[in-house]
Amino acid sequence: MNKKLLSLCLFFAGAAGAAFAQEPVDTAMVKKIREEGLNHSKVMETAFYLTDVSGPRLSGSPELKHAQEWAVNQLKSWGLVNAQREPWGKFGKGWEVQKNYAAITLPYYHAIIAIPKAWTPGTNGLIKSNIVLIKADTITDLDKYKGTLQEKILIIDAKAGTERTFKTDASRATDEELDAMAKAKPEAAAPRRAIDRNSPAFRARAFRTAINTFLKDQNAGLVLSQARGSDGTVFTTNGASYADTAKAVSPELEVSGEDFQRILRLVKAGIRVEMEADIKTQFYTDDLQGYDVVAEIPGTDKKLKDQVVMIGGHLDSWHAATGGTDNAAGSAVMMEVMRILKAVNFKPRRTIRIALWSSEEQGLFGSRGYVLNHFGDPKTMELKPEQAKLSAYYNLDNGSGKIRGIFLQGDSLAGPIFKAWLDPFKDLGASTVTIRNTGSTDHVSFDAIGIPGFQFIQDGLDYGSRTHHSNQDTYDKLSEDDLKQAATIVASFVYHTSQREEMIPRKELPKPQPPAARN
Amino acid sequence: MNKKLLSLCLFFAGAAGAAFAQEPVDTAMVKKIREEGLNHSKVMETAFYLTDVSGPRLSGSPELKHAQEWAVNQLKSWGLVNAQREPWGKFGKGWEVQKNYAAITLPYYHAIIAIPKAWTPGTNGLIKSNIVLIKADTITDLDKYKGTLQEKILIIDAKAGTERTFKTDASRATDEELDAMAKAKPEAAAPRRAIDRNSPAFRARAFRTAINTFLKDQNAGLVLSQARGSDGTVFTTNGASYADTAKAVSPELEVSGEDFQRILRLVKAGIRVEMEADIKTQFYTDDLQGYDVVAEIPGTDKKLKDQVVMIGGHLDSWHAATGGTDNAAGSAVMMEVMRILKAVNFKPRRTIRIALWSSEEQGLFGSRGYVLNHFGDPKTMELKPEQAKLSAYYNLDNGSGKIRGIFLQGDSLAGPIFKAWLDPFKDLGASTVTIRNTGSTDHVSFDAIGIPGFQFIQDGLDYGSRTHHSNQDTYDKLSEDDLKQAATIVASFVYHTSQREEMIPRKELPKPQPPAARN
Repeated sequence: MNKKLLSLCLFFAGAAGAAFAQEPVDTAMVKKIREEGLNHSKVMETAFYLTDVSGPRLSGSPELKHAQEWAVNQLKSWGLVNAQREPWGKFGKGWEVQKNYAAITLPYYHAIIAIPKAWTPGTNGLIKSNIVLIKADTITDLDKYKGTLQEKILIIDAKAGTERTFKTDASRATDEELDAMAKAKPEAAAPRRAIDRNSPAFRARAFRTAINTFLKDQNAGLVLSQARGSDGTVFTTNGASYADTAKAVSPELEVSGEDFQRILRLVKAGIRVEMEADIKTQFYTDDLQGYDVVAEIPGTDKKLKDQVVMIGGHLDSWHAATGGTDNAAGSAVMMEVMRILKAVNFKPRRTIRIALWSSEEQGLFGSRGYVLNHFGDPKTMELKPEQAKLSAYYNLDNGSGKIRGIFLQGDSLAGPIFKAWLDPFKDLGASTVTIRNTGSTDHVSFDAIGIPGFQFIQDGLDYGSRTHHSNQDTYDKLSEDDLKQAATIVASFVYHTSQREEMIPRKELPKPQPPAARN
Repeated sequence: MNKKLLSLCLFFAGAAGAAFAQEPVDTAMVKKIREEGLNHSKVMETAFYLTDVSGPRLSGSPELKHAQEWAVNQLKSWGLVNAQREPWGKFGKGWEVQKNYAAITLPYYHAIIAIPKAWTPGTNGLIKSNIVLIKADTITDLDKYKGTLQEKILIIDAKAGTERTFKTDASRATDEELDAMAKAKPEAAAPRRAIDRNSPAFRARAFRTAINTFLKDQNAGLVLSQARGSDGTVFTTNGASYADTAKAVSPELEVSGEDFQRILRLVKAGIRVEMEADIKTQFYTDDLQGYDVVAEIPGTDKKLKDQVVMIGGHLDSWHAATGGTDNAAGSAVMMEVMRILKAVNFKPRRTIRIALWSSEEQGLFGSRGYVLNHFGDPKTMELKPEQAKLSAYYNLDNGSGKIRGIFLQGDSLAGPIFKAWLDPFKDLGASTVTIRNTGSTDHVSFDAIGIPGFQFIQDGLDYGSRTHHSNQDTYDKLSEDDLKQAATIVASFVYHTSQREEMIPRKELPKPQPPAARN
């Protein structure tokens, strides 16, 4: 296979300077992959089962387990082997919303858009109360509320929410932006930031934690805080730890900016606002383990089949929607990559492995746990034998936008290879190779242990403005053409990585990372 | 007053052709009005009481009555006279939402964003059911559902909702757009359209009415239909008539595009979806009368005080939000105009009257009723004496965007006058005078009876994309600077109209309009 490939596609660089062997591209296989990926795609069907059918996939939830089990079975049905939910370590409690209703009833009735903060308790049935404004700049400011908050619904003072924007919600990368990325100089690795205990953000968080403790001690009925977002879009967070040892907090709702500000304006104007709410949440502690989904297409080349090419994305989501763009998109694309490779009846030289991570949203835990179990410990840089056998890891986790290129993550030696591999996809808008790093996705876990780990450059669409961690991150926000394009390109990258004579060249091994620096 | 004004501000046009007297502008008074309107504004405080404090102001609702009574008292407190709720004729039933909760409970729990259609009944407590898909192209297709829909929750098949847009939600008029308006040729009045009973829209509506009758006969528990809008924005409509004689319909929810499409995809894929809902709505039939708020600053010129300048906007809104931009904006601006004129201690020659209409949303009923009671019947063009004494009516009802100019509504003689009056506001972005007509606001009722009636040109902001008739039309969507600008300019227009030697010149009197043409 490789000789045919070489004979088909060997070119020599015509650029000034020393001639060198151009990275080969198997144009016949690219054609097959394009045909399967662009014209016979099942990526939207896969996404449907991961989103609409499975539901919100918060780490530890029954819905994530449903999606994982569905993915394992689906990957098996496509002929993959070793498909399983593989434990990566201890995560914590599962949690889901089982009832979510809140409305103001005075000065008139209005049901509000609000989402329970993840891992907060419910209200224990319908509660009704006037809304009390909590205004405190210091802990001692809270004293005046002592003994008055029992079973009350509270609103914590906040500045006005999102201003009207004259920008588009959705956008694609411009030629200028891509040019700038292509021409970027190598960056130093991001500095290891120690936690600044004097930063305003740190102090605000600490103060809020102190308020939470006070409110819990006072047996508050329900706390309203302002969600980021506007127009009915509510960005969500967690309100307590998932740890099985986490201390109890009050029930808390993140309220849409408009609903929150209305209540706040009324209460501040001295107008009585009454509210009713019925929030039920369920914790699960029967299995505190976290799991990743893994499955393989085994290698067939005697010399190379112990070597591996990995692809992945995280399957867990936040809880207010079905995580369409974050990250059913990447998960469905990577599953589709495996389906495409089976559909074109590809027998790879190296083993190809997919991993669908969990607990990415809490700190890349699924991929970090996997790396620790298989490749080594980035704290000490003690490596396991598998570390030497993973050629590359490719990740997709920046929403539903199509691929415009790839971040080299400082691995300059991979540049010419990826440039050649992108060449057949210029017509699909993907051609940019940037030396830059990108963060906050699971390739970081591999990069930290010295394995080439890459995230593709993707069009943003409305990821930042509407979907990322919001109640609007649904199947509807998936862009079918973009996902088909992405699956086609990743399949071609995986094909070439698995067939390549050598593994993807590596950067210098990172230095051991003290625990504080891991984030 | 007028002589001083003339001596201050008389200019002669220097343009080619015959010289003519430039319309005078009282720059000293403009300065006072600007100071009061831009630097001592109370427009946001007024808007707060009309929106946050009063609530959704659907015609006939207690919330509209609250806002009307507040407005009457506020106008009185500013020194206006004859402030009252003036009946304009029979409207119909009042209606409000008193409970609004709906969630899918299988295949997992998810509370949905949905709004009861106006004037539909509630569910009579919490109902639970699997969701049944109603798929029918003809009435006979409904036969198969007979006897199976009792107390069921139904979803009516629909195409996918809004596509992702790469346009901005909010925008302002561009120089090019304003230029085109300024250069526009006079338009013929909009042709009187007969109802086309063969149009797809008419037939679709008739078919939907037939479905509604069938579902009501079958005692359906709750009907889900798809709302226009995305990202949590739900545009609302009515589901039944407000007439006291209207026939009963089933409870119906307009569901956010994303929630609706999720349910539809699941049901169509054969996956069981269960839902629970608790909708309570309240009808009010104790007073079927409609009311407008009116109040005056009386004229002081013996010769002219029987003549009137009117300003207005409609105070009624839809039911899912507090009608911030539609049309608390216009109502608050017009109230602010009266406040400004009192604050600068203006004693007008002509009487100045404000009217805050109701039932605009159902067909300009409040202003039409007022016109019928005071000025004449556009069906017959039989005029009442007051018709000859109203100089002009100025309206504001295109959202929260600032004024960029004015529609002449074909009244070319008013053009040079308004051009002169806009001159001191070029720095605030308002200078365009267009001969064009605009429709769908209450000035149309005046235009129809031969009274100069004008709507200002306003920046659109996010009126079309987010707020107009939606659940997101709240106080937060008001743009403070825009409203201050608008109030300042309208106050100056009203000032000059009241002081002008002559009334605003009129177009030819319209022909009588047969009833079918009224829309």
